[in-house]
Amino acid sequence: MSETVSVEEFEKTLRKDRERITGRMAAILPPPEEPPETLHQAMRYSSLEGGKRLRGLLCLWSHRMFGDPHPSASLDAACALEFLHAYTLIHDDLPSLDNDDTRRGKPSCHIKFGVALSILAGDALQALAFETLSACPCPEPVNLITSVNILAAAAGSKMLVGGQAADLEGEGKTPREETVQFIHSRKTAELISASLAIGAALALGDSPSVSRLQDVGRDVGLAFQIVDDLLDEEGEEITVGKSLRKDLKRGKITWPACYGVKKSRENAGFLIGKSAARIRDFGDRGLLDRLFHLILDRAS
Amino acid sequence: MSETVSVEEFEKTLRKDRERITGRMAAILPPPEEPPETLHQAMRYSSLEGGKRLRGLLCLWSHRMFGDPHPSASLDAACALEFLHAYTLIHDDLPSLDNDDTRRGKPSCHIKFGVALSILAGDALQALAFETLSACPCPEPVNLITSVNILAAAAGSKMLVGGQAADLEGEGKTPREETVQFIHSRKTAELISASLAIGAALALGDSPSVSRLQDVGRDVGLAFQIVDDLLDEEGEEITVGKSLRKDLKRGKITWPACYGVKKSRENAGFLIGKSAARIRDFGDRGLLDRLFHLILDRAS
Repeated sequence: MSETVSVEEFEKTLRKDRERITGRMAAILPPPEEPPETLHQAMRYSSLEGGKRLRGLLCLWSHRMFGDPHPSASLDAACALEFLHAYTLIHDDLPSLDNDDTRRGKPSCHIKFGVALSILAGDALQALAFETLSACPCPEPVNLITSVNILAAAAGSKMLVGGQAADLEGEGKTPREETVQFIHSRKTAELISASLAIGAALALGDSPSVSRLQDVGRDVGLAFQIVDDLLDEEGEEITVGKSLRKDLKRGKITWPACYGVKKSRENAGFLIGKSAARIRDFGDRGLLDRLFHLILDRAS
Repeated sequence: MSETVSVEEFEKTLRKDRERITGRMAAILPPPEEPPETLHQAMRYSSLEGGKRLRGLLCLWSHRMFGDPHPSASLDAACALEFLHAYTLIHDDLPSLDNDDTRRGKPSCHIKFGVALSILAGDALQALAFETLSACPCPEPVNLITSVNILAAAAGSKMLVGGQAADLEGEGKTPREETVQFIHSRKTAELISASLAIGAALALGDSPSVSRLQDVGRDVGLAFQIVDDLLDEEGEEITVGKSLRKDLKRGKITWPACYGVKKSRENAGFLIGKSAARIRDFGDRGLLDRLFHLILDRAS
C-alpha cells in the first residue's frame, strides 16, 4: 500500500477486505444451530449478508495508515463496528420506528423473524460488539479501553441513539438547519468517526492523530448521510437495496429539504475534500483517500 | 466491616449504599433538559426510581471483601450494572415481549413514553453501561478490560438475551427441567454473576477468586430467579411492585411449574447455603452474607 493506489488495486483490496470482515464476523457470531437457534439465525441474517462494510473498512484502513501493526486486532474491531451498525439497522427498521420492510435488498429482520426476536437480536448484537472489541488482540490494554470508550460514547444517547430519537421527533416538522445538523451529526457521523479513531487507537497512534481522525470521521460521516438523503430522493430502489422516498413519505427532516439538492451536493463535496486534505500527513493513505471519494460518488 | 455485621449495621449500610449508587447514576445520566429531552427523561425514569440495586450492591460488596481498594471504580461499575439491568427491564416489558404495564410500582416505560422511545432508551442504557464501565477509575487497564468483557459476555445472545429469547419461545410449552434451567441460568443468573466478578476484578483480585465469585454469582442468581417465580405465584402485587400471576397467564415455564413450590423453596435455600459457604475464605464477607440471605427471604 502507499500514498496512492490504482483503481484496480483499490477495487481488489475492497473486495478482499470486505470478504475478510464478513468471514471473521461469521466466525465470531454463534452458529445458527446454537440455542436459542432463531435468535442466532436472526443475528446472522441481519449482519452477514449484503452490507457494504463501510465502517469496518474505515477501521481497517485507518489502522493501515499507521503501518498495520496489529492486523488481527483491527479486523476484530472492524467486526465489532459492523455488529453495532447491524443492531442499529434492525432496531431502526422496526414498525414503531422507521417501519421499513426492506433492508439490504431483502425483507427486514422483523418481517422475517418477528418484532420480539428483532428487538432481542439487536440487543444481542450491541452486546456482541462490546464483547468482540474488548477481546480483540491489542497488546496495549489502555488503547483497548480507549477504543471501547469511543465506541460506547458514539453508540449512546448523546450520539447515535440521540440522533435517532431526534430524527423520530422531527418527523412532520418544518425542516430547520440546526435540527438536520443535530440529527445527521449524531445518527450517522459519530459511528463513522469512531471507526477511523478506533483503527488509529489500536495501532497505538498518538492522541492528536486519534483526535484528528475522529474529526475527519465526523465530516466523512456527515457527507455519507447527505449522500444517503440524496439517494433517497433521487436513487433507484433496485440499486440502493432499500425502500426509497421514505423520507418524504414520513416527513423526515433531510439535508436536501433544508439546503436543496445542489447545495447538498456541494456540502458533501466540500466535506470530503476537506477530509482528504486532512489525512495528507499520513503515509499509506491511498485506500482511505479512494474510499472517501467512493462515499461521495456511490450509487447505493 | 467484618466477617459478621449486625442486622442494624447491615440495614444502615444497605440504605446508604443504595443511595450512593442511585446518586451516582443520577450524576452520570445526561440531565433531563439535555436534547433529546424525552429520551433522557425516559432513561432517567426507568433507571433512577424504585430499584433494589441488587446488582450494584453485589458489585460494591464483592469489592469490599478485597479491602475496598478502589471504591470509586466499584461505584461506577455498580452504576454500569444497574444501567444494563434497567435496559433489560424496559425491553422485557415491551408489548411484543412480556407486555407488562407496571414496573417498580409505576407505569412501564412504554406506557409513559411510547414504544419507539422505550426501544431507544433501552438501547442507550446498554451503551451507557459500557461507557460508564470503560471510563471507571481503575488503575489497572487489564482488569478494566476483563470487567468489560465479563459484562458484554453476560449481556449477549448466549446469556442474558439468549435466556430472554428462550423464555419467549417456551411460552405455552410443557415445563421441562432442562428448559427452565437453560432460561433461568441465562436471563437472570449471569448478570448477577457478572456483578460479583466485576467487583472482584476491579479490586485486582486474583483470577481464581474472580472465577469463584463468578460461580457463586450463578448460584445466587438462580436462587434469586427461583424466588422471583415463587413471588409471582404467591406474592402480593402491592408489595412486589409489578404485575403478578403473569407467568401463569402467559404460560411461562417457571421453576415451581417444573419442581413444585416446596422443592423450589428447598432449591433456593440450598443454592444460598452453598454460596454463603463458598465466600467463607474471604475476610469482610459480612454484608454479602446477609445480602445472600435477604435474596432468599425477600418479599419483593
